[in-house]
Amino acid sequence: MAKEPTLSLLITLSTALFFFLPAQAALSSNFLRKVPRFLGKSSRSHYAGAPTYQYETRYFDQDLDHFGFSDLPKFRQRYLINTEHWAGPSAMGPIFLYCGNEGDIEWFAANTGFLWELAPRFHAMVIFPEHRYYGESMPYGSREEAYKNASTLAQLTAEQALADFAVLITELKINLSAQACPVVLFGGSYGGMLAAWMRLKYPHIAIGALASSAPVLQFEDIVPHETFYNIVSDDFRREGSLNCFTTIKDSWDVIESEGRKNDGLSYLTETFGFCKKLESVDDLFNWLSSAYSYLAMGDYPYPADFLMPMPGNPIKEVCKKIDNSPYGTSILQRIFQGVSIYYNYTGTVECFDLEDDPHGMSGWNWQACTEMVMPMSSSKEYSMFPAYDYNYTSDEKWCLENYNVKPRPTWISTEFGGHGFKDALKEFGSNIIFSNGLLDPWSGGSVLEDISETIVSLVTEKGAHHLDLRSSTPDDPDWLIEQRATEIKLIQDWLDQYFDRRRSVFYT
Amino acid sequence: MAKEPTLSLLITLSTALFFFLPAQAALSSNFLRKVPRFLGKSSRSHYAGAPTYQYETRYFDQDLDHFGFSDLPKFRQRYLINTEHWAGPSAMGPIFLYCGNEGDIEWFAANTGFLWELAPRFHAMVIFPEHRYYGESMPYGSREEAYKNASTLAQLTAEQALADFAVLITELKINLSAQACPVVLFGGSYGGMLAAWMRLKYPHIAIGALASSAPVLQFEDIVPHETFYNIVSDDFRREGSLNCFTTIKDSWDVIESEGRKNDGLSYLTETFGFCKKLESVDDLFNWLSSAYSYLAMGDYPYPADFLMPMPGNPIKEVCKKIDNSPYGTSILQRIFQGVSIYYNYTGTVECFDLEDDPHGMSGWNWQACTEMVMPMSSSKEYSMFPAYDYNYTSDEKWCLENYNVKPRPTWISTEFGGHGFKDALKEFGSNIIFSNGLLDPWSGGSVLEDISETIVSLVTEKGAHHLDLRSSTPDDPDWLIEQRATEIKLIQDWLDQYFDRRRSVFYT
Repeated sequence: MAKEPTLSLLITLSTALFFFLPAQAALSSNFLRKVPRFLGKSSRSHYAGAPTYQYETRYFDQDLDHFGFSDLPKFRQRYLINTEHWAGPSAMGPIFLYCGNEGDIEWFAANTGFLWELAPRFHAMVIFPEHRYYGESMPYGSREEAYKNASTLAQLTAEQALADFAVLITELKINLSAQACPVVLFGGSYGGMLAAWMRLKYPHIAIGALASSAPVLQFEDIVPHETFYNIVSDDFRREGSLNCFTTIKDSWDVIESEGRKNDGLSYLTETFGFCKKLESVDDLFNWLSSAYSYLAMGDYPYPADFLMPMPGNPIKEVCKKIDNSPYGTSILQRIFQGVSIYYNYTGTVECFDLEDDPHGMSGWNWQACTEMVMPMSSSKEYSMFPAYDYNYTSDEKWCLENYNVKPRPTWISTEFGGHGFKDALKEFGSNIIFSNGLLDPWSGGSVLEDISETIVSLVTEKGAHHLDLRSSTPDDPDWLIEQRATEIKLIQDWLDQYFDRRRSVFYT
Repeated sequence: MAKEPTLSLLITLSTALFFFLPAQAALSSNFLRKVPRFLGKSSRSHYAGAPTYQYETRYFDQDLDHFGFSDLPKFRQRYLINTEHWAGPSAMGPIFLYCGNEGDIEWFAANTGFLWELAPRFHAMVIFPEHRYYGESMPYGSREEAYKNASTLAQLTAEQALADFAVLITELKINLSAQACPVVLFGGSYGGMLAAWMRLKYPHIAIGALASSAPVLQFEDIVPHETFYNIVSDDFRREGSLNCFTTIKDSWDVIESEGRKNDGLSYLTETFGFCKKLESVDDLFNWLSSAYSYLAMGDYPYPADFLMPMPGNPIKEVCKKIDNSPYGTSILQRIFQGVSIYYNYTGTVECFDLEDDPHGMSGWNWQACTEMVMPMSSSKEYSMFPAYDYNYTSDEKWCLENYNVKPRPTWISTEFGGHGFKDALKEFGSNIIFSNGLLDPWSGGSVLEDISETIVSLVTEKGAHHLDLRSSTPDDPDWLIEQRATEIKLIQDWLDQYFDRRRSVFYT
């Protein structure tokens, strides 16, 4: 194996695999870059059992380019706000700001229960500003216009998004006479990166940040490129079983050789229950790899329905299917039954659609083609994935062909700190929590040790992708309850110190 | 007095009065905004007695928009570099980076002797990158193209300039294998603001900053709007004499009433020796006010030739002329003889030109019309200038009419910290020197007290605009020698601490 088609899926997955918005890069221009849409077919924005939170939806006119003065139209940024529990300006009531990431902000609000639960305890206002170019916060009036070409997408960058947050919160505080109210930032995944970066770049605006599952070091060669897929593989080996890991590891060659046979693609289409005939084994590779990666990110200890409804400890369930199939079950059928835990846990799917809009422009893919260049490889020796060596050139080619844009792979490190990020934080920063669960494949690109007394790492061995930000449930294990309690204590410390400083200003 | 025409000069001077690049805002659209060019008629880039420093001139291709991905052409940024004294990568030789401000970088290099004198002592590399849109660092290939309209000027902002420095130094360090070499920032005036902001925004890139005469607080209402002109006035009252101050204070009414007479402008033209006939008293008001403000900024203790050749303690000399004129000398003649110290110290000027290109687009005026909105008023009671109340609306109108751009008066505070700047620095920052001389009218907008143990203010009572950055001379007073010695000690401390941290990494 390890021929081109086999490898493609890996880079397909590699560029970005945030929970909500996997971006995919093709190995070469011969391969379509498949672009799962945010909240597309394979995920749902809402389900009946989700807690609902109360908020007001508002809009704010933002400059499209904060760092330049071209005559660009302003755009309406949506934000959700709840002041029900807020202590108000005179009591310096805190403002909890969630850094909206790559998707509809209502979805993040619904899936970030932790913030809503904290608000009454801290008498805090809660605000969820949406990230530009996502949800309703579309420049040029509509998604279609905003996503038209590289020129209209140009201002979809992390720095502009941070400036949006900064301008919005500054104006809002003025309007509410709340200038003295401390702002605490929250964010998960890319939103966690934004929260940490915002604390670094706008210390005058926010007193601290909880950055959950934020792979701020997943750039250039700051962490080994194999990290992500090694963690996914470890999860299957340890949470599942060695047999499960080996079965998956062996499956690629089997698929590859089936695909090469006459009518092999028909056979694979039928085995895996796709609605339409597979066009290449790569599509199947992508489909499987996505499932494994998402299963690792969403390997929560209780049933959840974030991207997809899944049982608690879903990797264990997948591996039970794979390991406990009756004698004689083929390797492909076992794999299929395994990933059905991810793709068809409710048992209601009659056949599976592959992404049907391979040319659709997704916002995250644009970001991955510009700033968010996160190199990833996979090791054939260590991981359960086929070998792949990161190849910047082919990604660049893909981005030029598909978005007419050339990535700047070193820019994020220059702007926010790359190899020197931790040193700079240590010397210059304070009040950041980097929380990570080690089951989460993104944890390898985050900060996993305390950097200073006030920049701390909270690591849970059995946590997955920003589990701590979700609402509490009766099924929460003790370690999760403890993690959240520590976060609450740290946030309380930040606030107490802030209030002490403010008071000392009055009394001296 | 205090009619519109009388007032115009004040706001004319007010928007920006950096030493090198006065920007001028009109009181109303009726008044031309006069735009002295950088290194125009009234200043010189070079003179025979200037020390010359050795450097290599290099160019670096920069992205025009670091924060967005429009398909804009790259531009060539010029930088001057000297590695003669550099200890090199293995010895972690320091890199001293001067943050180029609004003008030709060779001129700043020639007038920043302090850096050149420090280089051998610290075995440092010296690098002077030019600010985009100034000198040779022109986007779109030429000054003419770069300054064509608001669209081509759009990327002339402080944040883009900081990103230029960040990208340049990062690339340069990689090319020299000098990643471990500490960078120390230097800058004066607007360049000092850039140095302080860069230390705040890019702590992973520079270990400290000497921000000389940097009015980082001269925005919105952080300092009283009258500060600048009050300090100019204090200088004339204290360094000159009460009579001198009063004579200038009384002169505006006299000019005003002369101007109203038939042929009054001809009389004024003759009295002040202009080559061409004055078109309004405003032109004369501007001409005089500029002189007073520059005299205050350049009130150095020894003869210098920065913008203009001047004697040591020039305000004292101006006031001697004004105070010691023979009995019967008219107030206008006294004023004229006074400002001749500024405009004609060499005695070689036969007649004076007013700026003859009032519509010329200057880079600083663009910056003043976009981000660098520094409100200024003058108090009729306290100052020697006519009363003027800052009027944002008229400035905005002027900017829209002349540049087709709308200022963002609160943006700099949002981006870099406004009222919360000092608090943020205290909690989050380190290793910045704010040096100021209290004769400098810009000192009122700078940081004049220690913010923390490592963010310190060095104030000299008799210093003027970034005097400390100039080369040492035999005439340096003790307090200047001491100020520079303290700066050297602090920079040495930053470096020692950096080396200690690096060493501890190796030994643990």
